[in-house]
Amino acid sequence: MAQSHVDEYLEKAKEWILNAGKQIKQDMKEPYEVETKKDATDLVTEIDKKTEQYFIDQIFSVYPDHKVLGEEGMGDEVHSLDGVVWIIDPIDGTMNFVHQQRFFAISIGIYIDGIGEIGLIYDVMDDTLYEAVRGRGSYKNGERLPNIDPHKRLDDALVGINNFWAIPNRRLNEKKIHELVRKVKGTRSYGSAALEFAFIAEGIIDAYITMRLQPWDIAAGKILVEEVGGITTRVDGSELDMMTGNTVICSNRSIHQSLLTFIQQKDNG
Amino acid sequence: MAQSHVDEYLEKAKEWILNAGKQIKQDMKEPYEVETKKDATDLVTEIDKKTEQYFIDQIFSVYPDHKVLGEEGMGDEVHSLDGVVWIIDPIDGTMNFVHQQRFFAISIGIYIDGIGEIGLIYDVMDDTLYEAVRGRGSYKNGERLPNIDPHKRLDDALVGINNFWAIPNRRLNEKKIHELVRKVKGTRSYGSAALEFAFIAEGIIDAYITMRLQPWDIAAGKILVEEVGGITTRVDGSELDMMTGNTVICSNRSIHQSLLTFIQQKDNG
Repeated sequence: MAQSHVDEYLEKAKEWILNAGKQIKQDMKEPYEVETKKDATDLVTEIDKKTEQYFIDQIFSVYPDHKVLGEEGMGDEVHSLDGVVWIIDPIDGTMNFVHQQRFFAISIGIYIDGIGEIGLIYDVMDDTLYEAVRGRGSYKNGERLPNIDPHKRLDDALVGINNFWAIPNRRLNEKKIHELVRKVKGTRSYGSAALEFAFIAEGIIDAYITMRLQPWDIAAGKILVEEVGGITTRVDGSELDMMTGNTVICSNRSIHQSLLTFIQQKDNG
Repeated sequence: MAQSHVDEYLEKAKEWILNAGKQIKQDMKEPYEVETKKDATDLVTEIDKKTEQYFIDQIFSVYPDHKVLGEEGMGDEVHSLDGVVWIIDPIDGTMNFVHQQRFFAISIGIYIDGIGEIGLIYDVMDDTLYEAVRGRGSYKNGERLPNIDPHKRLDDALVGINNFWAIPNRRLNEKKIHELVRKVKGTRSYGSAALEFAFIAEGIIDAYITMRLQPWDIAAGKILVEEVGGITTRVDGSELDMMTGNTVICSNRSIHQSLLTFIQQKDNG
């Protein structure tokens, strides 16, 4: 992939993400419809849908041969990551969007033949744009983010993890999480996966653990974190799959293995 | 207490809190010392101490007969709430301050003969000032905050609660918290008590539950929340004591009793 193509996609994506943010800010002042999806905590608004449609229209008008994989399913049915695939969450953290009118983000990952080339996360209300291009580092509002601390220890780490995984659940042994909560310096929960990735890239938190993310929640954040020296895998240590749901451990490299070990270890009690 | 006195204290407190915030922003650019207090998660920096000293100097220079109860214990040994007592947390969320360089606040509550008259919470990095005067409402950056939703239901509530209270602990039955986590719409954790109170006043979250707060963590937030129709008590429903540590349930009035009942109920399992 010629570098000039990446530059061009980046410029377009930045233009569109900022436009979309402006429109969301406008639209959220008026009443809008909220629906639930799978369950009462899985929300979608007409603004999510309108925003996804905006990206699809823009992308196809300039790049008719690209594919779009979006949270609201208004893009293509994507069966492979061949070619250029835009993986988009129009509003990541929809519950925050509806409930808090802040702490939500637009997330765009651009993958070329399966490789993450560009990641953009836009914190709309904070007007903060995180951007990364593979091999060129991560930036926050145009300023390069330093590499995250390669010597961070688990007992000095702030970990993003929702209470949901500390209570009995079907995805992992909550007792492991209890031990982890006791071991680390503290835990936080912000309610937007994209922002938690951005916060790791920025060093605000050192890890993020969750059992249930879709490609659009991850696509941009993974690149952003990699470009400052971090790593994102499934809980079993395997690579993420951008075609399906994933468990996720994202962190500094220095604590990633410890986190995997912690969560995978046999229960002693 | 003459209203004119309250107005005067409010003006002074606002002037000093904004000055202190400016100085903290300046000081945090240089290296500073971090110590631990009771345990590894209980941090204090020289900036906490310097900021508390700043408030003490200002207050005593103008009001030599007032008392100051501060987190770092540099003010008076306060044995009663008679007279005018400034209850101050120079940096609430010190771990966030050290680790994230954001999501921390200065908190000032002014109590007159035991009654909370003025509450100020200043989110330093966000440059956001929350203020409340008893009987006159709560404000965010000068704009009046509307009353919080009096019809909010528990299953539609976002609750601020740290993982620490969802794992086995000495203060409450974690199984009750597990049920609560399943019942509510979602949980969040931001790592600053003062900001969690401010977020309730703003409607960002609907409740905040914690088992371990000191007067300076609560003094301002309690007033801020009361002035938009919320309530703060101990977990057993009794009134907070501004002279000692407290368990805390702060929320909309519509869900406060449900939260108390949830946490106090006998264990069925």
